[in-house]
Amino acid sequence: MKRIAVLTSGGDSPGMNAAIRAVVRVGVRKGLEVFGVERGFCGLIEGRIKKMSFNDVAGIMEKGGTILRSSRCEEFRTTEGRKKAAVKLREHNIDGLVVIGGEGSLTGALILYEEHTIPVVGIPGTIDNDIGMTDMCVGVDTCLNTVVDAIQKLKDTASSHERAFIVETMGRESGYIALVSGLTTGAEAVIVPEVPVNYDTLSSRLLEERKRGKINCIIVVAEGAASAYEVARSLENRIGYDTRITILGHVQRGGSPTAFDRLLASRMGAQAVHALLNGDHCTMMALELGKIVHVPLKEVIENKKTLDMSLYNLAYQLS
Amino acid sequence: MKRIAVLTSGGDSPGMNAAIRAVVRVGVRKGLEVFGVERGFCGLIEGRIKKMSFNDVAGIMEKGGTILRSSRCEEFRTTEGRKKAAVKLREHNIDGLVVIGGEGSLTGALILYEEHTIPVVGIPGTIDNDIGMTDMCVGVDTCLNTVVDAIQKLKDTASSHERAFIVETMGRESGYIALVSGLTTGAEAVIVPEVPVNYDTLSSRLLEERKRGKINCIIVVAEGAASAYEVARSLENRIGYDTRITILGHVQRGGSPTAFDRLLASRMGAQAVHALLNGDHCTMMALELGKIVHVPLKEVIENKKTLDMSLYNLAYQLS
Amino acid sequence: MKRIAVLTSGGDSPGMNAAIRAVVRVGVRKGLEVFGVERGFCGLIEGRIKKMSFNDVAGIMEKGGTILRSSRCEEFRTTEGRKKAAVKLREHNIDGLVVIGGEGSLTGALILYEEHTIPVVGIPGTIDNDIGMTDMCVGVDTCLNTVVDAIQKLKDTASSHERAFIVETMGRESGYIALVSGLTTGAEAVIVPEVPVNYDTLSSRLLEERKRGKINCIIVVAEGAASAYEVARSLENRIGYDTRITILGHVQRGGSPTAFDRLLASRMGAQAVHALLNGDHCTMMALELGKIVHVPLKEVIENKKTLDMSLYNLAYQLS
Amino acid sequence: MKRIAVLTSGGDSPGMNAAIRAVVRVGVRKGLEVFGVERGFCGLIEGRIKKMSFNDVAGIMEKGGTILRSSRCEEFRTTEGRKKAAVKLREHNIDGLVVIGGEGSLTGALILYEEHTIPVVGIPGTIDNDIGMTDMCVGVDTCLNTVVDAIQKLKDTASSHERAFIVETMGRESGYIALVSGLTTGAEAVIVPEVPVNYDTLSSRLLEERKRGKINCIIVVAEGAASAYEVARSLENRIGYDTRITILGHVQRGGSPTAFDRLLASRMGAQAVHALLNGDHCTMMALELGKIVHVPLKEVIENKKTLDMSLYNLAYQLS
Repeated sequence: MKRIAVLTSGGDSPGMNAAIRAVVRVGVRKGLEVFGVERGFCGLIEGRIKKMSFNDVAGIMEKGGTILRSSRCEEFRTTEGRKKAAVKLREHNIDGLVVIGGEGSLTGALILYEEHTIPVVGIPGTIDNDIGMTDMCVGVDTCLNTVVDAIQKLKDTASSHERAFIVETMGRESGYIALVSGLTTGAEAVIVPEVPVNYDTLSSRLLEERKRGKINCIIVVAEGAASAYEVARSLENRIGYDTRITILGHVQRGGSPTAFDRLLASRMGAQAVHALLNGDHCTMMALELGKIVHVPLKEVIENKKTLDMSLYNLAYQLS
Repeated sequence: MKRIAVLTSGGDSPGMNAAIRAVVRVGVRKGLEVFGVERGFCGLIEGRIKKMSFNDVAGIMEKGGTILRSSRCEEFRTTEGRKKAAVKLREHNIDGLVVIGGEGSLTGALILYEEHTIPVVGIPGTIDNDIGMTDMCVGVDTCLNTVVDAIQKLKDTASSHERAFIVETMGRESGYIALVSGLTTGAEAVIVPEVPVNYDTLSSRLLEERKRGKINCIIVVAEGAASAYEVARSLENRIGYDTRITILGHVQRGGSPTAFDRLLASRMGAQAVHALLNGDHCTMMALELGKIVHVPLKEVIENKKTLDMSLYNLAYQLS
Repeated sequence: MKRIAVLTSGGDSPGMNAAIRAVVRVGVRKGLEVFGVERGFCGLIEGRIKKMSFNDVAGIMEKGGTILRSSRCEEFRTTEGRKKAAVKLREHNIDGLVVIGGEGSLTGALILYEEHTIPVVGIPGTIDNDIGMTDMCVGVDTCLNTVVDAIQKLKDTASSHERAFIVETMGRESGYIALVSGLTTGAEAVIVPEVPVNYDTLSSRLLEERKRGKINCIIVVAEGAASAYEVARSLENRIGYDTRITILGHVQRGGSPTAFDRLLASRMGAQAVHALLNGDHCTMMALELGKIVHVPLKEVIENKKTLDMSLYNLAYQLS
Repeated sequence: MKRIAVLTSGGDSPGMNAAIRAVVRVGVRKGLEVFGVERGFCGLIEGRIKKMSFNDVAGIMEKGGTILRSSRCEEFRTTEGRKKAAVKLREHNIDGLVVIGGEGSLTGALILYEEHTIPVVGIPGTIDNDIGMTDMCVGVDTCLNTVVDAIQKLKDTASSHERAFIVETMGRESGYIALVSGLTTGAEAVIVPEVPVNYDTLSSRLLEERKRGKINCIIVVAEGAASAYEVARSLENRIGYDTRITILGHVQRGGSPTAFDRLLASRMGAQAVHALLNGDHCTMMALELGKIVHVPLKEVIENKKTLDMSLYNLAYQLS
């Protein structure tokens, strides 16, 4: 293995730059030439591939987003598209590819390997924490802290008024961000895609708490479960609460990565190079027992992470 | 003057607690008895008045919200309601009242003085920065930093994608928060209630910038000018932009106050006690040339602060 | 088991309040009476034990420090002292004790169990991350982010000048904080107690980097390895660098806990109650594979965590 | 006026980049060619002058430090050095110079004007807030918030222990940072260069407070008044306090600038270009009554700002 490439794909997550930096620097230290692919699989198909040096990644670890930019690439979902990508890699004599992204991106990497035997390794980068076989994904921790900071600010003002505050977080299919941010801020309720919401039960519970003296409440809802507006209307109709809405949106994807995400991304990036060099192809870097291990990409895709219901119950016990 | 009271009214703003602390501590040091009124003018009408000691305000300066809680009080808008309030103050032998709040609250204080000759002094506490005759109001600085932090996070992720991000800020009648947060983050456009928005012009400008290579943009809109959804639809229809929305909501009212707000609030709180003692009644504490001065409350109400259009122009020159 | 108590001991760490909250709330939900012991083992000996209700722990999760206060207790190191403590627990009919603290505190808990068969469970709370058999301790993550933020600020100004900046972090025997904060900020060198420092080698390396164009450097040193002043003098003498010093001190122990620490502490606090109820005595709550497990306290004490040298090497590879 | 240059000099302060950005962008919009001088007056003497475009300053407003780098330049203090600088400016046909920096740098600009009639305008950039005739200098607000955040973290842990915490801040001749950060965190004492410290009085006061129940205290000291170690020793010797030390050092110069500093710097940068174009030479941009005005540089230098003793007294009244 002489030349490797790295790309970021799908929704960006904080820490992706730290992973890129580690891939480039460890690669260079190991005597490899390292290339960056711009705009994910789209850029791969278009051949937007440029050599990266040790200094090209100076000062990027602390930045949110991804210096290689990202994209969701429809063309890569086709046999045709993937073939073009493989051709581009061969044209550049690239022997191995590191893909940083979420489930869709890792699936893409897997198929690229299966169809074209391109040595790939994956790094789980997503704020959804829905990827199997790893304790955490790059970006989750930063995202959580952003949401927690926002809810904490809400609590300041909430305690001054008699109202329900609804916070809509990211999470189309995964309620992890909503659940953990709710649990760690003492939110009165958490609504996630994995558990059907019953507005009658919820309303009764809030009414009971009001009787016990709680004059305001914070409800965290994952976008995949309901919109903040839907929740607000449901409560207003049922129990006449005055509601206020916060939709954090893409603010949740940004921010300088936390120490945790920088460390995780740095370690995974370094290990990704080792995995390529050791012939551990078609694996994903995973955090397990505080160590970075290589797990088969195929198994990762087949074992999506589900919500830990013990956390869901804990959130209610503690609130 | 022997006994004074303090209350917070209307929308809360960060730094109100620092002002309460200063009123209580300086009052006590001056030999006064100081009382806190809960829930603003509503609490005054209901007689929710309790004595506060030096230690009761320990550790509150750094907290967002207001420990006295706040309210918007319909009853106080009636002659009847204000009479009840005056009676309660007299029952408690309270000789002077400090009102911390925005325009509505200060107007209330003025009328209370005019109708019942209750010695009042006001402290401008609002995130809108729309109160005349003072450089800044308590809470504006913290709010601005919260919005700036959020937009800065958006910029991280924005640079990874080709999209328009719309951020809706507070500001029903005042565009200050939207304008200054946009200016200080280099947002591509700012939409404020004071300047009618022309979506055709805006769309043309964004298209031109796209031609020059800017693949994404951030637009900050004050809630009083348009909703984020309206802006998004307008751009999508006209120029086919993929848009993403952030609505910060009451997050903007919270947060531990900045050094600026703590200092401003502490100085205004201290001066409010001096003003009461010196017979400078029916005044508002104002920041002028870096000093705290007393300005007539009546003039404050008659001279609402308007948006500084030179800042509006500067935002466009710099973006 | 009907009545349990909880205490915090030794150096405080962010997240201890979240753990206290979880112990109290889960305890109360399970029908137990829960008591808080003030000032750690000292307070236990003095009988400073008070009942805590569900509401007593409202709004504390987000606070640094510990509402129960802490201490290092010399008397508890004596047979006599521990006997007094056991007597006090029996006087209050307390059936189980949760001890939140670092190695010394957990050792104290172990001996209390061995000498007096008091059912104890431990929660690892320390910023040093030197406790065995658990991936992380409560407080480490917050501390790391505090140090990373500070170093990141230094980097801003460092890049404007030609200097060496020395940052002294906590860590008397453990270099974890220094190492990981250095790694995640791209510091040029990290000095830890576990690896003897050679100033000649260090100086040569810095000189070489200067030749390659790096005009400034950041060196992170754990207090147990050397003082910032010692490092500064060594570099000034050898290579004439202009140096600047930062000593963060106890700032590192404070701050609102991160999402990670809140979650870890909440889960460990909840599990500690379950462990007491299930008769899993003399265990410590540990994070393993993303789950909270119970490990024997004795083994924890016998297996101190050592520095992961692969991280040390990675720090140098990436810098 | 066709060609102008901008430089940053002396200790850097957060917001300098926002000022550079505004000078460049407003200059370009006004049809000027704008040049950046690297490393302050040293770079000027060496002719390190490069043209800057609108895009060269994209994405720098949010960064601490200064992209032009800074220096303290001994040679510029000589007639000879300043002559070289003037020659370089003439060689590049530069008609006007914007100097961003503190008192020494602005004095340098004044002399350059007086000796060589180079049109100069100054922007006060320093964390010391010791420059006359302006309410605030660029960088002070960010620095204050950094110190306040650190002290606030200390307070968390302080309340868990019985100790005195000494925080040393920047401020060789000015106690502003120490005073305001102490005032806005409720520190028990503030030691500044402007007021001689009496350790006996201080010790008595602390002892009295201990008697009233305050078991810990925070003392903020400006480096120009005493070192943290000196304060610690003085207290330990007199009243046997256990002390802990924090020295923030250059961390105080860094950090992403606050909204206030970004706005102030942007406005001053824009006005500096207007001042050069309008022939308002040898002036400094100043904040006065919330507006940016031009004040004669000579008067600025002759009227150093002194500490506002009413703030000093307020700090004690409130603590």
